[in-house]
Amino acid sequence: MTEADVRSGQAAGAGGGELAGGGELAGGGELAGESELAELYRAFAAEHLSPLWTQTGDLMPPHPRSRAAAHVWRWKALYALAERAGGLVPVGRGGERRAIALANPSLGGRPWATPTLWAAIQYLGPGEVAPEHRHSQHAFRFVLEGEGVWTVVDGDPVAMRRGDLLVTAGWQLHGHHNDSDRPMAWLDGLDVPFAQQVESGFFEAGADGVTDRSTPERSRSERLWGHPGLVPLSRLGPQRSTPLAAYRWHHSDAALAEQLALEDEGRPGVIEPGHAAVRFSNPTTGGDVMATLRAELHRLRPGTTTAPVREVGSACWQVFQGEAVAVLDGREVALSEGDCFVTPSWVALQLHTAVGADLFRFADTPVLEALGLDRREVG
Amino acid sequence: MTEADVRSGQAAGAGGGELAGGGELAGGGELAGESELAELYRAFAAEHLSPLWTQTGDLMPPHPRSRAAAHVWRWKALYALAERAGGLVPVGRGGERRAIALANPSLGGRPWATPTLWAAIQYLGPGEVAPEHRHSQHAFRFVLEGEGVWTVVDGDPVAMRRGDLLVTAGWQLHGHHNDSDRPMAWLDGLDVPFAQQVESGFFEAGADGVTDRSTPERSRSERLWGHPGLVPLSRLGPQRSTPLAAYRWHHSDAALAEQLALEDEGRPGVIEPGHAAVRFSNPTTGGDVMATLRAELHRLRPGTTTAPVREVGSACWQVFQGEAVAVLDGREVALSEGDCFVTPSWVALQLHTAVGADLFRFADTPVLEALGLDRREVG
Amino acid sequence: MTEADVRSGQAAGAGGGELAGGGELAGGGELAGESELAELYRAFAAEHLSPLWTQTGDLMPPHPRSRAAAHVWRWKALYALAERAGGLVPVGRGGERRAIALANPSLGGRPWATPTLWAAIQYLGPGEVAPEHRHSQHAFRFVLEGEGVWTVVDGDPVAMRRGDLLVTAGWQLHGHHNDSDRPMAWLDGLDVPFAQQVESGFFEAGADGVTDRSTPERSRSERLWGHPGLVPLSRLGPQRSTPLAAYRWHHSDAALAEQLALEDEGRPGVIEPGHAAVRFSNPTTGGDVMATLRAELHRLRPGTTTAPVREVGSACWQVFQGEAVAVLDGREVALSEGDCFVTPSWVALQLHTAVGADLFRFADTPVLEALGLDRREVG
Amino acid sequence: MTEADVRSGQAAGAGGGELAGGGELAGGGELAGESELAELYRAFAAEHLSPLWTQTGDLMPPHPRSRAAAHVWRWKALYALAERAGGLVPVGRGGERRAIALANPSLGGRPWATPTLWAAIQYLGPGEVAPEHRHSQHAFRFVLEGEGVWTVVDGDPVAMRRGDLLVTAGWQLHGHHNDSDRPMAWLDGLDVPFAQQVESGFFEAGADGVTDRSTPERSRSERLWGHPGLVPLSRLGPQRSTPLAAYRWHHSDAALAEQLALEDEGRPGVIEPGHAAVRFSNPTTGGDVMATLRAELHRLRPGTTTAPVREVGSACWQVFQGEAVAVLDGREVALSEGDCFVTPSWVALQLHTAVGADLFRFADTPVLEALGLDRREVG
Repeated sequence: MTEADVRSGQAAGAGGGELAGGGELAGGGELAGESELAELYRAFAAEHLSPLWTQTGDLMPPHPRSRAAAHVWRWKALYALAERAGGLVPVGRGGERRAIALANPSLGGRPWATPTLWAAIQYLGPGEVAPEHRHSQHAFRFVLEGEGVWTVVDGDPVAMRRGDLLVTAGWQLHGHHNDSDRPMAWLDGLDVPFAQQVESGFFEAGADGVTDRSTPERSRSERLWGHPGLVPLSRLGPQRSTPLAAYRWHHSDAALAEQLALEDEGRPGVIEPGHAAVRFSNPTTGGDVMATLRAELHRLRPGTTTAPVREVGSACWQVFQGEAVAVLDGREVALSEGDCFVTPSWVALQLHTAVGADLFRFADTPVLEALGLDRREVG
Repeated sequence: MTEADVRSGQAAGAGGGELAGGGELAGGGELAGESELAELYRAFAAEHLSPLWTQTGDLMPPHPRSRAAAHVWRWKALYALAERAGGLVPVGRGGERRAIALANPSLGGRPWATPTLWAAIQYLGPGEVAPEHRHSQHAFRFVLEGEGVWTVVDGDPVAMRRGDLLVTAGWQLHGHHNDSDRPMAWLDGLDVPFAQQVESGFFEAGADGVTDRSTPERSRSERLWGHPGLVPLSRLGPQRSTPLAAYRWHHSDAALAEQLALEDEGRPGVIEPGHAAVRFSNPTTGGDVMATLRAELHRLRPGTTTAPVREVGSACWQVFQGEAVAVLDGREVALSEGDCFVTPSWVALQLHTAVGADLFRFADTPVLEALGLDRREVG
Repeated sequence: MTEADVRSGQAAGAGGGELAGGGELAGGGELAGESELAELYRAFAAEHLSPLWTQTGDLMPPHPRSRAAAHVWRWKALYALAERAGGLVPVGRGGERRAIALANPSLGGRPWATPTLWAAIQYLGPGEVAPEHRHSQHAFRFVLEGEGVWTVVDGDPVAMRRGDLLVTAGWQLHGHHNDSDRPMAWLDGLDVPFAQQVESGFFEAGADGVTDRSTPERSRSERLWGHPGLVPLSRLGPQRSTPLAAYRWHHSDAALAEQLALEDEGRPGVIEPGHAAVRFSNPTTGGDVMATLRAELHRLRPGTTTAPVREVGSACWQVFQGEAVAVLDGREVALSEGDCFVTPSWVALQLHTAVGADLFRFADTPVLEALGLDRREVG
Repeated sequence: MTEADVRSGQAAGAGGGELAGGGELAGGGELAGESELAELYRAFAAEHLSPLWTQTGDLMPPHPRSRAAAHVWRWKALYALAERAGGLVPVGRGGERRAIALANPSLGGRPWATPTLWAAIQYLGPGEVAPEHRHSQHAFRFVLEGEGVWTVVDGDPVAMRRGDLLVTAGWQLHGHHNDSDRPMAWLDGLDVPFAQQVESGFFEAGADGVTDRSTPERSRSERLWGHPGLVPLSRLGPQRSTPLAAYRWHHSDAALAEQLALEDEGRPGVIEPGHAAVRFSNPTTGGDVMATLRAELHRLRPGTTTAPVREVGSACWQVFQGEAVAVLDGREVALSEGDCFVTPSWVALQLHTAVGADLFRFADTPVLEALGLDRREVG
């Protein structure tokens, strides 16, 4: 019997420089008989114990090796199925939302886009109402196309329109209603898988409809908070989540355009040549919009290739407009408007675009940063 | 066909006030034929999509319902098996540590004590050496009995003795060696399951032995940092993890004794009648010893019953001395010295002791607090 | 000889409840002869010592009693004198700025508006240039009227126009030039007296003119930072002072108008009935624009009377438009457009307006808050 | 008439590179007649205005030029005078304390050691009581010699002994009583001048005596907080000021000795060769003991010469034991046990000792650091 046999059972061989696996055991000396060992492992099992030395190398790998794979979902397919669901499945209390989650095939059928992120397409037909509820999980909506829906957040009706980011922070009551005669679909992002892992979730139903069916151009939240660098004296102090419910496309678009214009003038602004980017931020702290979720918009000029970047933590991207190629750990994927893809932890992403592209991105990085677990490698 | 059929598949009925499950669908209207629906669900599956409305209630439960159950491991059994492993399994590079993890039976055979916490008994025979390595996961050791082992942390030998808490923060190189002629066993605590969930783990092997085999009474870390309220001018500023490698029993014991003495004098100090408690803290911030792990010692006078407490997040307890009864969501478990038990998220814990008890506790609460996800209910 | 004589010299009688002064000495017993005491006091003086018990009550008063008095400066007079200076005094290196400071008569001829704040009217004629320099003192400009001047801050030309707040944080190089054919005057605010007290000031001359004479509509700073809730990815992280060089009147005006409109709708927004207010904030932190200076705009509806407020720390106000009456510790002062007044520490201020008024305010409160010394009493 | 005449009045010539003073005015052009200017200056004065261009260079000097000079007070003289005062001046309500302040001769007779710091020798005879009061100003006591006095802080009696630092944070009620048959004297440090500048001071008298005349070896505060790295669960969270009322000499001494021992072993610990130093810290934050005051102990081996250091902000030093020479901007002063000296802002200090020395130091640096105004130059 060899030393390697000691680590029998699950133990798969693992390369050098990582915990557990097929390295040579240092101790040496005479090894026990097989039967004694087998009996010991049976005794471990009986007492609900698990020896470290039989763990496979993924317990403590040399660097993050995500159990998730990179994956792409095509907007055309998503939208078509959402539309079909619109005709077949009602929306209301119980099911709560006509939301169809991106279920990363590498995650065993769970409705997770990545190990920590939830992404879904939500579809609301003319006149339909998604009833009010609240949950400790953080949520946002990003609108690829259409308009006519108002999300009512803590009683404040917020119009949803192409390019807008709408925030529903944890424990805010919210429902949606479609005030138009056309259906509307958008991307929902949440931290549901993360909340499930740390088992922090609370949920409460609210009104069966929405509490305010008015359809103002601007929400009250924007009227109080949507002025650059200005905070109302009646609402001072840092708040965990952004008090600004809507980040409008015309602002994002202008900010991205200015960065590229500054680049044209030879001035700082872009993060790398041809690559403008803004982060959505909480005006009471300057940090991320929500404690667990980061959201950004990126604009690439035609002909731009970004530096490859790998980060601890996962992200989900959606092409807002244009076309691009994502290179994920060397694998190329062509992307069109609306397509969604995910980058698992420590998977390198490089973007290239011939015709130019705007991309929306959200990620779990605030979690990692809050705990000092973030790492990043460029190039 | 009924509306409930729409939520076919996995959908289990769920009570009111929670997301997804058996509530009545509000929408109503004419429902699609079964075959159309079945085809839609097949199309979802083909595109790696998962509709929200077929999810069971545990996606967003009204409050955390841990997938882990409370569980108890008996020290006697742990120690006996560790001893047997000491005779059968060598320690060295590859397996790295003779550590035997508490594998909560409700967590499907994984070596997790709770969904976020790793706990293990580690055993090192006379003269044995656990080789040096480092990982981004945070770790500590708590010593129930024995002495004679030095853990060498970033080259600094730290003696391990009964009642001590020894800290190895993320990415510190560390190995252990037993300088005595007797075996020694202790409790290891890490954030391995959490790190695996957020996929943040890095690992690197170091020297095959330990880099300093001296056996000083006090580590250099303690000589610099172990003076109450004093910080060296050469090491100013907040540090993510505590620079103090060892928290000695005689300090902890004195602090607990003083709280009870103050109670006898009618002065504040204890957290509730008969219940003294200290938290191990990072002297550069006053916060937890490590970004993901909280560690505490509790002392209960004979005859004390604590108020029931439920918290978001999970904890692992070990009886350091004395005897106690833990009441976990109403279920009583008698505990003796060395016994370990876990409290999953939102499970209420009440402690009672007739003869008095000291208990060590560690928990993932710093993660929840950093993200604003902590909640707590007393009584 | 009485006990009171012991505290001879400077000792003025002081009321009860405050340190030093005319209370009865508790000790009692036989007192020393006058000559012995006199000799002791001479010995103190010779050794540069000062006994606490002879200090007057203002060493530690029961509450702040500012050495400054409330005072009002009339814009008409300010402007007229600035204009005359424009004709008589050149601007350039050495004198640096044609700035005329408000010198609170209670502060002994020093050019201080309050014990911590500097306020001045600065005047720049057609074509004139105020040369570049930088200082660790923080500065801003608030524009009551006119336009045509660009302040060039770290090489970035920033247009100055009615109602705008322009920020020059500590150690930013800055100069001004008047590109128009008309003179322009504005209010400068700095923390010069505070910096002098804590002796923190550094100063450095820069170019003799300004380094960029272009006259863009918007500064590069605004193009990067002037989008609500959006931060450029190339400039992440908290910055001590705001990176936004200009806060434009049309934004401030809209924010104030919205608060009053929300009040009309019965919604939260104003800080008290008829009283809207915004604070200028650093978008990277949500806090004040500079570490030592707070800046705000207040709008009072016609007929509004505010609650009286007293605060630790001092403030300087300027009426931007409209008319108001300030009641300062009970004393009424009528104010017109452009008039400036100061509220010393712990002096109660109440505002009343028949016709409505907008008021600009700056204060040293960030200093007090950073050190936990802030207190506030309303009503 | 020359341009220089324009800056008549107070304007003293100042070197290049600083604000205001004798540089050449850039503007040029025809200058006004003398009489017109004189009339303008009279008009300024009448309106309480002060032109910047007539200010002397110390308004914005190139670097801090303290209005205070370095100064030394001899302990022998201090103690002798305090003793004489003990015989002549009673202690009690009104005068409150038999404290004799170091009055820096460069500060115009005010009882300030530096522009921001108060330092005094306090003397309490056998059986005497200093009555209870509280103030928002922060205070501490450092004991050069003697014992027998208890300071009662918020009702908690704290023994005072040689080498101890005793903290009375802002707004804590405190009185002192001498329980022995010998007088005792110590150094008081406060932020009184700073509080007076920012006008933040509140004061309140308490009981005429002290509220607890017991004389315990250790205060309740120490019993709760004086255990390295341990915080009581009943008192969690950051607190503005340290909850630890006493920092005992035996801890400080041990910490300093360990740093030098580590140096002997070739390990990090000291801040420069032969120079050990600890900072007294708030265990709930790791920061300074109080928001406005830093306190440290320094130990120099025999034969040590420190690097010259200049800092923004001022400090006061006392030789605790041994002898040293302070070189203050090049000027040498020999120091013996008990001698106090101050280093004004930006004055370079170098220390040398032939026989070895321990020095206590306190400074206003936390104020500067909180506001980002700190700068430091070594060598």
